[in-house]
Amino acid sequence: MRLSHYFLPLLKEDPREAEIISHRLMLRCGMICMIERGIYSWLPLGLRVLQKIQSIIHKYQQEIGALPMLAPTLQPAELWKESGRLDAYGKEMLRFKDRHQRELIYGPTAEEVLTDIVRRHVKSYKNLPLNLYNIQWKMRDEIRPRFGVMRGREFLMKDGYSFDLTPKDARISYEKVFQSYLKTFKAMGVQAIPLRAATGPIGGDLSHEFHILAQTGESELYLDQNLLDQEGLEMKDFEKFYAATDEKHDPSSCPIPLDQVSCSRGIEVGHIFYFGSKYSAAMNALVKNAGGQDIPLEMGSYGIGVSRVLAAIIEAHHDEKGICWPVPVAPFSLGLLSLGRSSEVEKTSTNCYQRLIDMGFEVLWDDTEKSPGEKLASMDLLGLPFQLIIGERNLQQGLCELKERKTSNVQVISLEEVLNILDTNTALPRFKEVF
Amino acid sequence: MRLSHYFLPLLKEDPREAEIISHRLMLRCGMICMIERGIYSWLPLGLRVLQKIQSIIHKYQQEIGALPMLAPTLQPAELWKESGRLDAYGKEMLRFKDRHQRELIYGPTAEEVLTDIVRRHVKSYKNLPLNLYNIQWKMRDEIRPRFGVMRGREFLMKDGYSFDLTPKDARISYEKVFQSYLKTFKAMGVQAIPLRAATGPIGGDLSHEFHILAQTGESELYLDQNLLDQEGLEMKDFEKFYAATDEKHDPSSCPIPLDQVSCSRGIEVGHIFYFGSKYSAAMNALVKNAGGQDIPLEMGSYGIGVSRVLAAIIEAHHDEKGICWPVPVAPFSLGLLSLGRSSEVEKTSTNCYQRLIDMGFEVLWDDTEKSPGEKLASMDLLGLPFQLIIGERNLQQGLCELKERKTSNVQVISLEEVLNILDTNTALPRFKEVF
Repeated sequence: MRLSHYFLPLLKEDPREAEIISHRLMLRCGMICMIERGIYSWLPLGLRVLQKIQSIIHKYQQEIGALPMLAPTLQPAELWKESGRLDAYGKEMLRFKDRHQRELIYGPTAEEVLTDIVRRHVKSYKNLPLNLYNIQWKMRDEIRPRFGVMRGREFLMKDGYSFDLTPKDARISYEKVFQSYLKTFKAMGVQAIPLRAATGPIGGDLSHEFHILAQTGESELYLDQNLLDQEGLEMKDFEKFYAATDEKHDPSSCPIPLDQVSCSRGIEVGHIFYFGSKYSAAMNALVKNAGGQDIPLEMGSYGIGVSRVLAAIIEAHHDEKGICWPVPVAPFSLGLLSLGRSSEVEKTSTNCYQRLIDMGFEVLWDDTEKSPGEKLASMDLLGLPFQLIIGERNLQQGLCELKERKTSNVQVISLEEVLNILDTNTALPRFKEVF
Repeated sequence: MRLSHYFLPLLKEDPREAEIISHRLMLRCGMICMIERGIYSWLPLGLRVLQKIQSIIHKYQQEIGALPMLAPTLQPAELWKESGRLDAYGKEMLRFKDRHQRELIYGPTAEEVLTDIVRRHVKSYKNLPLNLYNIQWKMRDEIRPRFGVMRGREFLMKDGYSFDLTPKDARISYEKVFQSYLKTFKAMGVQAIPLRAATGPIGGDLSHEFHILAQTGESELYLDQNLLDQEGLEMKDFEKFYAATDEKHDPSSCPIPLDQVSCSRGIEVGHIFYFGSKYSAAMNALVKNAGGQDIPLEMGSYGIGVSRVLAAIIEAHHDEKGICWPVPVAPFSLGLLSLGRSSEVEKTSTNCYQRLIDMGFEVLWDDTEKSPGEKLASMDLLGLPFQLIIGERNLQQGLCELKERKTSNVQVISLEEVLNILDTNTALPRFKEVF
């Protein structure tokens, strides 16, 4: 993408309304634009990241056999009366009437809708197990929306729902999603820690939250110090170490010595629940078992805050100059900077841009008339993993600069060497269409 | 996809509530499930088609340089007061108040939101032309929602907005989208006809609708008979022939003889508008021209009814047995049917399924225990372009059946020949990930 043809309204100053770093950086990078308190438009750069996060979620959901569907944003209040939850969400649930005075709500979650679909269409244990998920906009009418998309009102959520015949099967489904979530966050280039959690209004007796560690996190987490000391955690490690949210941590019954417990802050990006027949019993969602008896479905639900995880990634991956995107979710892999206006710089940049595109890289080329200083600062702010800098002086010696954003490591080498380094970097996505 | 692992709740009987064929077939094929009047969940099969349609739209939008972004579903009523349109939509616009008594609406379109974004971020003619589009859920609180997703309340729309300095530039942008829409519908495998149209509440003086011809269409269209007689229309043809919607057709000023005008019915799937400075002037969206003067932006807006076009495709592509999907939007390219339960059928089917997957085809394998008759009827209902039928009797002679759904043409040939035919069919998508 040529920057001169893109819509990337960068801000030079920190916007006053932004209290946390991800909100500040998302506004400064032209990723989002507030339309109403807690309600944002996603500008092209922000949407690219949001799409990449969604693609990763789809991949790992489908790997465990979960099936994509799409629930509507609006739901009849009736369904929530059936489940007995209409009041549980209080004022955070946006409620209103349509022109015929029918009560509707803007869904904050979709247990009722999915239970309704499955009770209408699944009658036998032979159609189980079933795991249906969707990525759809949700609404939570926060009393004080803040922190940008971290605590917005209209937010994008992946919500999945498993349906099984027995509690044992349901726990297998739960475990599959648990493992898959760890893979999902890892594939985004972030470390998310699972913790035993309270179930809140969703209900049930088994629940885990997934948190990305960050100083700015809203949640207090109690973690085995050994968990934090480990490098390159594998999934099975998480089962060995104590990790609990604030609500769940009880010093009097903690299974490890209290001086081994570290208190950290985290951002909740995922939450999974096993709640048995809470909804299926209330809503009469029954299937026949092998003996011909009608029994209520065993259910779990599984959420990832899609727009929130994007902000959490920035909280965990930035420095004083701007964002440092993990490669898998970077909006572009590479920034190409043309410094100076000589015809040589122009010619080399054009050639280089075309070759990178032909190699299947996602490149953002700053081909504008801004000063070299401005271009360098903007590119650091945007935080693409690599920068390829074409400047007049280097070019006279047949050289250019390849800079890794995260380490600031710069190599002054020939263009052919740059292309070779990028070509052999297997982490960089190729031929990836964002949509 | 193995049908035994899929969620495809087929209905054997025509649902009573469905008045038109696309609604009937979408319900019978387990593509959608009604949650509330005019509000549907998209089940896995329906969502696959919806995604393919979206991918095609993205491709042709980006081909003309339009940039993807995403506006929220909810908008502040204030913006609509600024443009003067708050009352124009009447009761079809869903309005409500949040917990702080702020007036919100569920967007039926997004001219105001986009004008607001652009007035905040674009100050100079140097940042033009600009064309921003999104595919997002919209709401139209129909007094009598009917015909399934054809006239639903919550519907998926692609809406794009162009911003230019001069009327001349704006007409160039309009023309680009016009041409691109013709390509878009053609790429979906359908013929859409553009017609001069009235502008309605969007405003402006230049507008075209795009219609798919179908007996069940709500709109009356007046077309040059020569247009209908043409085979394989090219884009430039549409500029030669008279075509107007009901509101726009005036017999007293028709440029061709009235006995050459044919009256047809069509389904509106796209609508484009050039409305100059209607919104930019009202909302003070100004840019500096080369002379340093602030002038209001010249704008157009461009819509495709994404969920509606899916239903329209079915209206135009079905027979008495079910849907006949055009290849580019078919949920799967191929249905694999195992008839009978011998170990040979099982073994050949398993092998065949794996080879088709390895070749990059999207295959739906009916590996269930249903009877041969039921499997054949369901596959015809689903309307995948090809069916590969593995039956015991043919298999004893090393043969299977390849059936083209649309023509019912059947070839009884060896599996290798089938694979060869499919392999050399360049129209079939390969290695396509739906998400």
